[in-house]
Amino acid sequence: MRAAGHIVALCGGVGGAKLAFGLAQVLDPQDLTVIVNTGDDFEHLGLSISPDIDTVIYTLAGLADRERGWGLAGETWAFMDQLKRLGGERWFNLGDRDLALHLERTRRLAAGESLSQVTVALAHRLGVDCAIVPMSDQPVRTRVDTDQGELAFQHYFVREQCRPAVRAIRFAGAAEAHLSPAAREALARADLAAVLVCPSNPYLSIDPILAVPGMTEAIAWSGAPVVAVCPIVGGQAIKGPSAKMMRELGLEPGPLTVARHYQGLIDGLLLDEIDAASAVAVEALGLAAAVAPTVMRSDQDRIALAGHALAFAEGLATPPGRRVRA
Amino acid sequence: MRAAGHIVALCGGVGGAKLAFGLAQVLDPQDLTVIVNTGDDFEHLGLSISPDIDTVIYTLAGLADRERGWGLAGETWAFMDQLKRLGGERWFNLGDRDLALHLERTRRLAAGESLSQVTVALAHRLGVDCAIVPMSDQPVRTRVDTDQGELAFQHYFVREQCRPAVRAIRFAGAAEAHLSPAAREALARADLAAVLVCPSNPYLSIDPILAVPGMTEAIAWSGAPVVAVCPIVGGQAIKGPSAKMMRELGLEPGPLTVARHYQGLIDGLLLDEIDAASAVAVEALGLAAAVAPTVMRSDQDRIALAGHALAFAEGLATPPGRRVRA
Repeated sequence: MRAAGHIVALCGGVGGAKLAFGLAQVLDPQDLTVIVNTGDDFEHLGLSISPDIDTVIYTLAGLADRERGWGLAGETWAFMDQLKRLGGERWFNLGDRDLALHLERTRRLAAGESLSQVTVALAHRLGVDCAIVPMSDQPVRTRVDTDQGELAFQHYFVREQCRPAVRAIRFAGAAEAHLSPAAREALARADLAAVLVCPSNPYLSIDPILAVPGMTEAIAWSGAPVVAVCPIVGGQAIKGPSAKMMRELGLEPGPLTVARHYQGLIDGLLLDEIDAASAVAVEALGLAAAVAPTVMRSDQDRIALAGHALAFAEGLATPPGRRVRA
Repeated sequence: MRAAGHIVALCGGVGGAKLAFGLAQVLDPQDLTVIVNTGDDFEHLGLSISPDIDTVIYTLAGLADRERGWGLAGETWAFMDQLKRLGGERWFNLGDRDLALHLERTRRLAAGESLSQVTVALAHRLGVDCAIVPMSDQPVRTRVDTDQGELAFQHYFVREQCRPAVRAIRFAGAAEAHLSPAAREALARADLAAVLVCPSNPYLSIDPILAVPGMTEAIAWSGAPVVAVCPIVGGQAIKGPSAKMMRELGLEPGPLTVARHYQGLIDGLLLDEIDAASAVAVEALGLAAAVAPTVMRSDQDRIALAGHALAFAEGLATPPGRRVRA
């Protein structure tokens, strides 16, 4: 597909990466910038690990494992076996091949490269030509306040398997962070045609991106239509703890809760067919609503949803003469 | 075998580790301390790597690869394959299982443990009960002055495959290093029965150990007989560049060159049968000489050589009444 201009996608891990894959199939590489959450990043065994960036790289490179939902297809686990034998930390699984990405990133960061530079270089090595960019080159660390106290994100998400009840979420370091240069440039492009919010966890994957000072302003000032794909389908999250967290926060898991969460940021919400009845309520909030199949089981599903999201956004574009820039 | 007392072995990598394995089979674990060269240690990809310590641990644990001569048997290389794909440094091979040792050691060192503590803990995890101790907990780094300039040890040994001609060797950091606590304690034991110099490269594996301030004094003051197993057999090194280096340094590769190199340190040299004719010349230097099969192809060879070395040392022991301590 020839896009009418540049597309920016805001993206977390697995669910978001699937839509990003679809976008990468239908757009020319130079027409797509994927801004990725780095609030999940952490240091483990001396390695700088960026789980969402890795998932997006592996997914767009066609290397991701589809069954497990994370990591590389055909991965082996000799390192973890031996690490367990040596009494090392075993709660975060690191595949043998995956380790290469973490060691090489850690080495390059220590040598003075920015996370943006490292990400572009490693993605390119794996054959990804569109721009995968971290939301920021400064560390932002998602911390989850739960009924068991405040937990670092990976302790909540992986070690505790999202079992603790969430009370609040904060993004340590966000106030001191800056937009990554490529994120800033992509949102400032004169030909920016749309900003798509991928079907990622709003609280854990998209909110950290929005917490970087200047991000929401850059999106608003772009004048481009902003469309989110609803990550809740039939009251459930396709993957991850979105729906569970909504209940813990006293919210009904559903499109309306997502729409309210993104109010002020988005112009439209793309709902799954199963939630078509919620479209009227979304529109009552002053947002556009569209309906499409949003569950992505195959590459064809991903490509089709990318097409629906792009078409929805195109339909919301302010005619150039009326485009307002703050 | 019940030893008459404690045995200390000075040891480099592969060749030395084979004799250490033999000693570990014939001695009770509490009767053996293996002091290992750390001049080969280096930092690579952010990891603290101790090649000789690793070889000794893997060999004594029965996990070493016998064909390749380094690393673990049954090792896999998925990490290296992916690292090459990512454009990472490829000159030093790191196996998937082996990586666990390096990451866990690096993590423990960063957490404040000494190399001695880390080494004991990891060796124990792999089932090694005798004491494997680094020569020092402070960094000592072997640097090789060659016809292509000065090279860090692993650059000379692995990256350049020992091709440059050696002119001199120095041990950076040695002057500021201290004996590791366990090495000091083992050499000060009242029941020390022998110090064995394993058939390792004298210049690259044993000299760094001897360069740690206080090491040669501790050995001399112990009053225990000091016996070296000659690493040169029939004018050749069993493995590694010993013979090539001797020629580059203007020395004839053979037992007499080894005996002269160790003069002042050792009381006796154990020669291979093929070099039996050199025994007289060794004795003319004022050293004892003994002859045995020293090429270790099987576990039985290793055990037999350990027995020969222990018996040779026992025969050289000063009767207790005549033992002189400085």
